[in-house]
Amino acid sequence: MSKKQLILDLFAKDMIKFGEFTLKSGKKSYIYADIRTSISYPSLFKQICNEYSKIMANIQYDMICGVPYSALAIASAIAYDKSIPMLLKRKEVKEYGTKKILEGYYNPGQNCLLIEDVISTGASLIETTIVLEEHRLKVTDVCTLIDRNQGGREAMQQHGYKLHSIMNLTEIIDVLYAENKISANDKKNALALL
Amino acid sequence: MSKKQLILDLFAKDMIKFGEFTLKSGKKSYIYADIRTSISYPSLFKQICNEYSKIMANIQYDMICGVPYSALAIASAIAYDKSIPMLLKRKEVKEYGTKKILEGYYNPGQNCLLIEDVISTGASLIETTIVLEEHRLKVTDVCTLIDRNQGGREAMQQHGYKLHSIMNLTEIIDVLYAENKISANDKKNALALL
Repeated sequence: MSKKQLILDLFAKDMIKFGEFTLKSGKKSYIYADIRTSISYPSLFKQICNEYSKIMANIQYDMICGVPYSALAIASAIAYDKSIPMLLKRKEVKEYGTKKILEGYYNPGQNCLLIEDVISTGASLIETTIVLEEHRLKVTDVCTLIDRNQGGREAMQQHGYKLHSIMNLTEIIDVLYAENKISANDKKNALALL
Repeated sequence: MSKKQLILDLFAKDMIKFGEFTLKSGKKSYIYADIRTSISYPSLFKQICNEYSKIMANIQYDMICGVPYSALAIASAIAYDKSIPMLLKRKEVKEYGTKKILEGYYNPGQNCLLIEDVISTGASLIETTIVLEEHRLKVTDVCTLIDRNQGGREAMQQHGYKLHSIMNLTEIIDVLYAENKISANDKKNALALL
């Protein structure tokens, strides 16, 4: 399956939508990208994981950490398939038991590759890298399926991290317009709000 | 790898420990079983997933749902490896966006197999089955790696669910004692508090 076909599949399954949306940051957007439902479509889920594996082939790391929840599912599948040690950063800290925000076994100084699904401004990703660094892990690279072209790449770079994205919103808009899936008006509206 | 070897590996990697512990329920225990760190050991993680696949071979279901976080990593790996549609039940509901507690695509009436890692009383599992049923999914079976022998099986049965466990604490204690990994005193203390 090509990247073009992956974009068409994500659109066909409503994981990429056009219309008026408000992002987490409060900013308006005309394009919605959310791959959470992909876990329910085995061949699509496999294709997504395989796209990550491709870009991961050129990155140096000792382990991977998936950001809950979608990217955690993806990281788990890749960790299983490629025999890569994994860590898990909770969204919340348990009230009982070992009360760890970071689960898994590692040694200080090891390089942890972060797996995210969609990056916007990068703010939540930077929160995650801070947690990893507080645990004396090294973070140099971050992988994401979709870069929303909203400064995430630059924000990561400013903090010293390299962002590897499989696709960005401009590419998605171009493919969907070229394949007659969206109107010229959708394209214009979506690009205007990037 | 045999189930015995899996138990020895979990013990060697401190995922099964003996001593004085307090469980989530407030109850005292002399045996601690927590497989969260297994995600960091690729061959162990694979072996755990394969043990689930074995018991899943005799169960009828349309999709699987992993309970965050350890079992979600396991369910994701199995879903990827065996091409099984997956759902994901969040621990918390997002404040923005689609605000779903259950993520994924499904049709009402489909049978969802629950994947848990360790079952104690079954209380948190029953909370999860209620969420799935409120979403008009059917739940008949639940898989877990470890049954703590604390009434979970009976509680699930009372609610109409069948629990499939890969191992229970009695088996674990027996294997570790037979292999000279724990003392007679550890065995006695652990069994006394089951």
